[in-house]
Amino acid sequence: MSDKMYRVALASRPDGAPVPANFSYEAADIPTPGEGEVLVRVHYMSLDPYMRGRMDDAESYAAPVPLGGTMEAGGVGEVIASNSPDFEPGDFAFGMFGWATHGVQPAKMLRKVDQTQVPITTSLGVLGMPGFTGWYGFTQIGKPKAGETLVVAAATGPVGSMVGQVAKSLGLRAVGIAGGADKCKLAVEKFGFDACLDHRAYGSAKDLRAALKAECPDGIDIYFENVGGMVLEAVLPNMNRFGRIPICGIIAWYDAGGLGEGAQGLSGPKIWRTILVKHLLVNGFIISNHWNLYNQFLSEIAPKVASGEVAYVEDVAEGLENAPAAFMSMLKGGNMGKQIVKVI
Amino acid sequence: MSDKMYRVALASRPDGAPVPANFSYEAADIPTPGEGEVLVRVHYMSLDPYMRGRMDDAESYAAPVPLGGTMEAGGVGEVIASNSPDFEPGDFAFGMFGWATHGVQPAKMLRKVDQTQVPITTSLGVLGMPGFTGWYGFTQIGKPKAGETLVVAAATGPVGSMVGQVAKSLGLRAVGIAGGADKCKLAVEKFGFDACLDHRAYGSAKDLRAALKAECPDGIDIYFENVGGMVLEAVLPNMNRFGRIPICGIIAWYDAGGLGEGAQGLSGPKIWRTILVKHLLVNGFIISNHWNLYNQFLSEIAPKVASGEVAYVEDVAEGLENAPAAFMSMLKGGNMGKQIVKVI
Repeated sequence: MSDKMYRVALASRPDGAPVPANFSYEAADIPTPGEGEVLVRVHYMSLDPYMRGRMDDAESYAAPVPLGGTMEAGGVGEVIASNSPDFEPGDFAFGMFGWATHGVQPAKMLRKVDQTQVPITTSLGVLGMPGFTGWYGFTQIGKPKAGETLVVAAATGPVGSMVGQVAKSLGLRAVGIAGGADKCKLAVEKFGFDACLDHRAYGSAKDLRAALKAECPDGIDIYFENVGGMVLEAVLPNMNRFGRIPICGIIAWYDAGGLGEGAQGLSGPKIWRTILVKHLLVNGFIISNHWNLYNQFLSEIAPKVASGEVAYVEDVAEGLENAPAAFMSMLKGGNMGKQIVKVI
Repeated sequence: MSDKMYRVALASRPDGAPVPANFSYEAADIPTPGEGEVLVRVHYMSLDPYMRGRMDDAESYAAPVPLGGTMEAGGVGEVIASNSPDFEPGDFAFGMFGWATHGVQPAKMLRKVDQTQVPITTSLGVLGMPGFTGWYGFTQIGKPKAGETLVVAAATGPVGSMVGQVAKSLGLRAVGIAGGADKCKLAVEKFGFDACLDHRAYGSAKDLRAALKAECPDGIDIYFENVGGMVLEAVLPNMNRFGRIPICGIIAWYDAGGLGEGAQGLSGPKIWRTILVKHLLVNGFIISNHWNLYNQFLSEIAPKVASGEVAYVEDVAEGLENAPAAFMSMLKGGNMGKQIVKVI
């Protein structure tokens, strides 16, 4: 192995949508693991919308990436050196190694990955943070009941596709929203959604609202929120009384600096009044606060992934140097399924 | 008794704040109770902010009052004729008699009022719908824990004063917001709030936000929402992670036709993002869906009202003909304590 590793650093903060100049691809020395630490050669890393938030210097639920710092990411790879009795070379582990070819982490921050039943890439998507996010928010906050109707956007992504599949397994009607006819086809044929609306086919929130109403004749009981923007504006009037809205992200608004843009029809008072008169429960959640339920999720879903009962789709970009382009494309919906970067 | 009764009807729908011409004071024949029904001579009626919503012809959680229809209200009075075995003349009962001197209701829609321990007016405020609203939202949705901090506006009203007193009894810090120095004095001295801020003393949400921060050094864990507007804008940035916001009303926005006014600093995206990054639970509730817990509330709070442990303040207007003026004044905060109209 080479003595050098590579990483992608935050070169400058984006003003709106990220551009290539915000990233810099750099060589660095491979770090040496200290006591209790483990060195991992990353095989695959994950690209997720939350990373856009880390690029801003704004108060959020996690600290921003400092200028010059390595972009944050989860990755999975092979242990190549270990100073911990819990790992030995040849083990596979998931950890927050960042956008990098190698990473050192304390052993207690790593999760051993079973590669015998399912591919290791599933630890980044369907069985990783995104899949867990969908399962947690839908089951624990959404509190689904058979016969109800679920709506989720980004329906072919790793969060939305998990939500839709869990919803179907529990006897709900599942209506997805996605960008493009091909994604909508995938949502229905691969993930079992009852219907999927292509938001690009609608010129306004009002049009999308009418289409949703037609696909949700009994109204919407659970809206799993991961996008915000026009979709939220179209969903809210269709919510049933006592509806539940878990919020795990608002990707449509991540690039809106002042956060006021793109919401002309969705004022603060209108949201607040809707929550009141429809008796809605709205609950933001950050999945990192809920890892205590991860093993429950894994024991329930991993066998279904191994058997094929729970489907997943991965979109793999080749090479760490191409991570910024894949990330920028993903934020615009250019990916099909869980976006991953093959690092090795 | 006279053969005539009087009522206040909705003469026209308000455009913004109600004006006298929206109401008409009219004579009518006293209705005759049918089988299972009861005729009540109303002694006191309640004025509550929710009635403003009923004046609009807009979708809400309850149907609007029709033009020419009697304004809606709860009232308490003496049974003067009964075709039900459950009531006899001389009993006192609470029911939705409207803005009227007399009313007929099915016996099953009435609640017998005990006048031996507490004045019957308490059935309209501290032990009625408003007090129950405060108790329910704070305890069942707010899920208070000792040592936390509560903020509630309209702190001397029947909802806010109940919330504050329950909060203190459970070991929370209670910070009120009210309009005027006299109300703030009342909140602290009569209802036991630790502090009370006069929102009229602050020129902007930003100023109020800073004042709240000073009075809530550990942040805000529960914001009991009954006003919206500038107070909400000032509160949100001070909310702690995992905070809870029960919403029972948004009086500051009831007069805003388009609901977009008065919220320049509070866009939909900003609210949504705050719920997400602070992991907030926001839950609208309409108290009429929760009467199943009313007896629990009554058995807990009524003895404390009788003993004086739970305080209340009533603002009594004289005469049904003066109800519109009292109502319009109340919407602007002109009342001190629970607004009641002495009808008889």
